[in-house]
Amino acid sequence: MALIVHKYGGTSMGSTDRIREVARRVAKWSRAGHRMIVVPSAMSGETNRLLALAKELAPASSTPQTERERDMIAATGEQVSVGLLALALQAEGVPAVSYAGWQVPIRTDSAYTKARIESIDDTKVRADLDDGRVVIITGFQGIDAQGNITTLGRGGSDTSAVAVAAAMNADECLIFTDVDGVYTTDPRIVPEARRLHTVSFEEMLEMASLGSKVLQIRAVEFAGKYRVPLRVLSSFTPADIPIDEEACSGTLITFEEKLNMEQAVVSGIAFNRDEAKISLIGVPDRPGIAFQILGPVADANIDVDVIIQNISHEGKTDFSFTVHLNDYAKAMELLRSKVLPLTGAERMAGDDKICKVSIVGIGMRSHVGVASKMFRTLSEEGINIQMISTSEIKTSVVIDEKYMELAVRALHKAFDLEQGLI
Amino acid sequence: MALIVHKYGGTSMGSTDRIREVARRVAKWSRAGHRMIVVPSAMSGETNRLLALAKELAPASSTPQTERERDMIAATGEQVSVGLLALALQAEGVPAVSYAGWQVPIRTDSAYTKARIESIDDTKVRADLDDGRVVIITGFQGIDAQGNITTLGRGGSDTSAVAVAAAMNADECLIFTDVDGVYTTDPRIVPEARRLHTVSFEEMLEMASLGSKVLQIRAVEFAGKYRVPLRVLSSFTPADIPIDEEACSGTLITFEEKLNMEQAVVSGIAFNRDEAKISLIGVPDRPGIAFQILGPVADANIDVDVIIQNISHEGKTDFSFTVHLNDYAKAMELLRSKVLPLTGAERMAGDDKICKVSIVGIGMRSHVGVASKMFRTLSEEGINIQMISTSEIKTSVVIDEKYMELAVRALHKAFDLEQGLI
Repeated sequence: MALIVHKYGGTSMGSTDRIREVARRVAKWSRAGHRMIVVPSAMSGETNRLLALAKELAPASSTPQTERERDMIAATGEQVSVGLLALALQAEGVPAVSYAGWQVPIRTDSAYTKARIESIDDTKVRADLDDGRVVIITGFQGIDAQGNITTLGRGGSDTSAVAVAAAMNADECLIFTDVDGVYTTDPRIVPEARRLHTVSFEEMLEMASLGSKVLQIRAVEFAGKYRVPLRVLSSFTPADIPIDEEACSGTLITFEEKLNMEQAVVSGIAFNRDEAKISLIGVPDRPGIAFQILGPVADANIDVDVIIQNISHEGKTDFSFTVHLNDYAKAMELLRSKVLPLTGAERMAGDDKICKVSIVGIGMRSHVGVASKMFRTLSEEGINIQMISTSEIKTSVVIDEKYMELAVRALHKAFDLEQGLI
Repeated sequence: MALIVHKYGGTSMGSTDRIREVARRVAKWSRAGHRMIVVPSAMSGETNRLLALAKELAPASSTPQTERERDMIAATGEQVSVGLLALALQAEGVPAVSYAGWQVPIRTDSAYTKARIESIDDTKVRADLDDGRVVIITGFQGIDAQGNITTLGRGGSDTSAVAVAAAMNADECLIFTDVDGVYTTDPRIVPEARRLHTVSFEEMLEMASLGSKVLQIRAVEFAGKYRVPLRVLSSFTPADIPIDEEACSGTLITFEEKLNMEQAVVSGIAFNRDEAKISLIGVPDRPGIAFQILGPVADANIDVDVIIQNISHEGKTDFSFTVHLNDYAKAMELLRSKVLPLTGAERMAGDDKICKVSIVGIGMRSHVGVASKMFRTLSEEGINIQMISTSEIKTSVVIDEKYMELAVRALHKAFDLEQGLI
């Protein structure tokens, strides 16, 4: 019998009726003889409610002290969830026990609101599993070396689930969500989008980082690092569907190279409109300039996504990067006050009305001309490309936000994603 | 400068505006140079909301496992409060840090939902105070030896505040509530009721145990045991009233004998309609019978209040006691199934339509005839007394619930509580 981790999102935990449904689903897996760990999110809306209260009372500027309190408040959402789910399982006749992150403990660094998991102690959890209990662990949070509660940031429950699966050496980690798997692109934008039965870990990593909201990127990274088999599947199927059927549903994230000759070159189209673009123009092109620009940004805990520096002319270059929309104002202010004066750049510019569209596929490694097909497709639609960035298995472009849907539909069609099988 | 503990109830913490008001009040004390610890309750309604969710999902019968989860859920209410208050103080420019009970830690036994505090580690808190921070600690909860979250039961935040004050050797513990002090009786029943400027610890203990809802009895016990000066005062005065005025308001619970010759014989009339009466009739009067009856009740964690056993006739006696209304059904069932068959009692009877009315006063020690004046007063009103129980400084009677208000008003008048000064 296998050791299985289930993760349920906020919608799945959205009401006592839904929680009862989760309990029935977990009970089914437990009764089939599996050793079960469950990581539920806060009830939908709860984290927002808590953070709104915190925001009302918070001082104007955020400090480690204010962020510590914000985590103290936000972490309670999941604590309520685990207790409620434990009660619902007990009502189903299944022994269950809940733990907050600090009780396991799940140890993190001290980067409040964005903490990273450092280690997970499996002693307590293993003892409970040996005693036949389902163990329910809060997602999204842990404890730092000083005993403070930390949170992992939005979507952190996925990461918690995968990290727990890795620490426990689980056989599979099932992420139950409100979608039934990973699609070639967002079906709300391209109705012909198709669900992938399997997707490679690397493709998923690119999909996640590019804004496919199915899985948090850090969760995918963790899964890759520790080779945790990960499955994304729907929590909206009836709780009593046969377990064999459920175990094969959704999309499995695999670690094997696909050997199928029919392998599509491109597996999916990802997009993201939550980014903003910042450029420093006329930067003296000298060694260390990239660090001089991005060092302070990293110190301020702002994640940078695309980074582009083109060849220089007359000793000057332009340096561009993208950040999350939420960090845009903070990043602009930081550059204006601290970076611009030091670098000797001529000026800076920002644009928060952009989007990023990417084609992703393992097959791109061995197929030439994929990027150029992308550029031609966009050109035929009259869409101007502002930035280009590539990796082995993806090509991303930054374009005007208003062309996003047009670009995604055109690319989905151009790469034949509506048809065929994986 | 003194070390002061403030405790704020759920109403005081009822909204972000009210929390801001609490922050301003605490900031005033902090700026006056006092070292401040604050113990807030959950926002009003929050604990009920959480327990209602838990109840919806809980199995039919409660076990240590279900009660553990209930505590896990309920404890989050205070955790949100401390974080919000810390943010509000920081916004006021006052350094502040919040701790959940387990972080301090406040160590308790493992009696979930009714845990008792065993010890409080003052290391962290003292270090923060030394660094000039206001320390905010969750009321109502702690951690047991196995690392589980426990709660102290309803009203437990008072107890937490006093226990923290005792552990820290605080100069005074101020309990801010929605009443402005301790009255001779409930002003809603007797409009002429008068606020006491001081009340002795022993009187307060009797008042609290008799149902004056101002302070939780365990809080008063703790204050007595560790000689913590305790003041009950209003949180509805403006936050910016002069600190000297605020420091003398409300009712101070004192440990000195009052030497005033004018000392009233009776300080107050307490009452309680949250009790039910249970009698075993025709119990064979043999050694160990009281333990045989009440042992199982205590084992079931049911608190017994009044206990009466009268002299026996023909080797048989009647044995009566009162329990909280919430425990009535459980206690009756327990007696019926486990106790009645063993004791050989003829039958049992229960009544949940009773109330207890008590007169309380240190002066009763040295004045005879106080009890008889009470009985005469009730007799003149035609009120039948069902049970009588006395201690050094109080006399309690159990009467029909419907006569409660009449009895309280008559006694308040008979003992001249409307007039004079303390």
